[in-house]
Amino acid sequence: MSKNITLAVGGGGKAMNALLTSTVFKCFNNPALLAAGDAAYITPSGGELAFSADSFVITPEFFPGGDIGKLAAAGTINDLAVSGAIPKYLSCSLVIPEGYSAEKLEKILISLSETAAEAGAVVVTGDTKVIPRGELVGLIINTAGIGEVRSRWNDFSKVSLGDKIIITSDIARHGTATLLARGELGFTGSIPSDCNVLSNMLNPLHERVVNFARDATRGGVAAVLNEIALGSGKGIKITEDKIPIREDVSRLCSVLGFDPLTVANEGVAVLVTPPSEAAAVAELLKAHPYGAASAICGEVTGGNFVQLETCIGGKRYVDFPAGENLPRIC
Amino acid sequence: MSKNITLAVGGGGKAMNALLTSTVFKCFNNPALLAAGDAAYITPSGGELAFSADSFVITPEFFPGGDIGKLAAAGTINDLAVSGAIPKYLSCSLVIPEGYSAEKLEKILISLSETAAEAGAVVVTGDTKVIPRGELVGLIINTAGIGEVRSRWNDFSKVSLGDKIIITSDIARHGTATLLARGELGFTGSIPSDCNVLSNMLNPLHERVVNFARDATRGGVAAVLNEIALGSGKGIKITEDKIPIREDVSRLCSVLGFDPLTVANEGVAVLVTPPSEAAAVAELLKAHPYGAASAICGEVTGGNFVQLETCIGGKRYVDFPAGENLPRIC
Repeated sequence: MSKNITLAVGGGGKAMNALLTSTVFKCFNNPALLAAGDAAYITPSGGELAFSADSFVITPEFFPGGDIGKLAAAGTINDLAVSGAIPKYLSCSLVIPEGYSAEKLEKILISLSETAAEAGAVVVTGDTKVIPRGELVGLIINTAGIGEVRSRWNDFSKVSLGDKIIITSDIARHGTATLLARGELGFTGSIPSDCNVLSNMLNPLHERVVNFARDATRGGVAAVLNEIALGSGKGIKITEDKIPIREDVSRLCSVLGFDPLTVANEGVAVLVTPPSEAAAVAELLKAHPYGAASAICGEVTGGNFVQLETCIGGKRYVDFPAGENLPRIC
Repeated sequence: MSKNITLAVGGGGKAMNALLTSTVFKCFNNPALLAAGDAAYITPSGGELAFSADSFVITPEFFPGGDIGKLAAAGTINDLAVSGAIPKYLSCSLVIPEGYSAEKLEKILISLSETAAEAGAVVVTGDTKVIPRGELVGLIINTAGIGEVRSRWNDFSKVSLGDKIIITSDIARHGTATLLARGELGFTGSIPSDCNVLSNMLNPLHERVVNFARDATRGGVAAVLNEIALGSGKGIKITEDKIPIREDVSRLCSVLGFDPLTVANEGVAVLVTPPSEAAAVAELLKAHPYGAASAICGEVTGGNFVQLETCIGGKRYVDFPAGENLPRIC
């Protein structure tokens, strides 16, 4: 295998087979994938499935707390997990710029594979394309995923007045970590991305009642709260000093003029639970390392808007982020 | 909705919601997608499933016989169909260059949706990313698909000595059509791509015995025949004058020095059937418009290589295409 990926790898012939054998099959070693058909045969345990897909592109591809491979696995696994499904099968489609380092690609695929394994999911199918030099700058990974549904957590109609809002981890880390890792700010920091698979933390919640769940990625917690308000036709009130956020992240956002509610996360879910379930759900979350900072931050109200009670006692509306979020992270 | 896609559309906020509402949800109008969750809930009819994924990028995006939307639907649907599955659910992930025409995107998504509908499949989930100007030249569409398995046509162990090789349509059309559409040859032609969904043509074959099936896309029929030889540990003999090919395609390949066996198709499958089934299978294929040119072209032999009996009575080995195929078509 040559050190850099050539255009020939995308041609479907010998060079592609060499890459598949030397790298892809080695990283994603499982019987369904190794059968190497046009499609993988899988046998989920009957019943309802969740199906999700996402493309990932990030600068830089390696950042504190993760890399594009971990991100690509966690992103789709989390979409399945917050939908109330146990993640089972992933696809991995690579779009590679000509000349890309084969060694870097292997590191990324190993990371993707290990992240999937942490959630008990396997990469069973995929695809590789190579784009000519000059037509694509960075690696693009698309993952699609299939999970077995245990509870329907993605149904706005269950969101009820008085329900509690839980944020499962401290917010705004992925966006700020990525921005720092780009090295364009003139200073550095030690904020790690929160990029993680949430399924092992969320799976025990199927024993409790969760009315709605969604992970807060692009658009941050602000986007998810507004989606819930819009989808349910209800309002949401959150209390600023209950929202979990690291001191350094908060200060960086303040310096840069970012509202941390709109900054991206890759390991934070927003849950809506009946009031009687909130404490038990929060306890289950705290029992998992990725949920250690989880907090009950607000509740479902009338209205049809999202309102924040600020630390100094004021109130402000929280809207969908309006345009391009800085920093772009995926 | 503005005429061109802005970077803000990829940010997960208001601009993205506007694109989703004005274009994506309109083109892919179905209850599972409109629920607009992080994942779609689907309920296949129990049993084994086929799962496949593919990324599509093509220049030009509109070509005689199709466009990148039709290609993206047909490509994944065909991977499911040749695996012996009835295609049911698709994802559609868009990676859009900043400034891309919203009108063109809508045409492409309508084409994708209509092609899926022809196969009885629906787009239930997806994702939209926008890449800054200068970092990506063309639109990239990734589709993943789920189908319900009726027969396991993707199992090399069933390929047996004496089995017949059937090619389901005339070959080398997609590659030559795309090349002509680029307008770089100094002459034009009227070759339409064979880009089509094969599932309606292949579905009736579940009533017969097919030992193996694969569609011949990148790498052409040559790659598929070699994959079958490699995977089954057997040989394949094909007869040149039985291979279906249009006169104009054959002449163009001859002029340009292409071996049509290595030129890409998007509507051709290679089938392996027991000798006793070949005639009945060929008849079923011919009953469908996309299979009108189908032909029994060869058989499974000893050896462990692919051999072509040429029109003038000679013999030559057919190998995997070695490097970058001209023209690149996906």
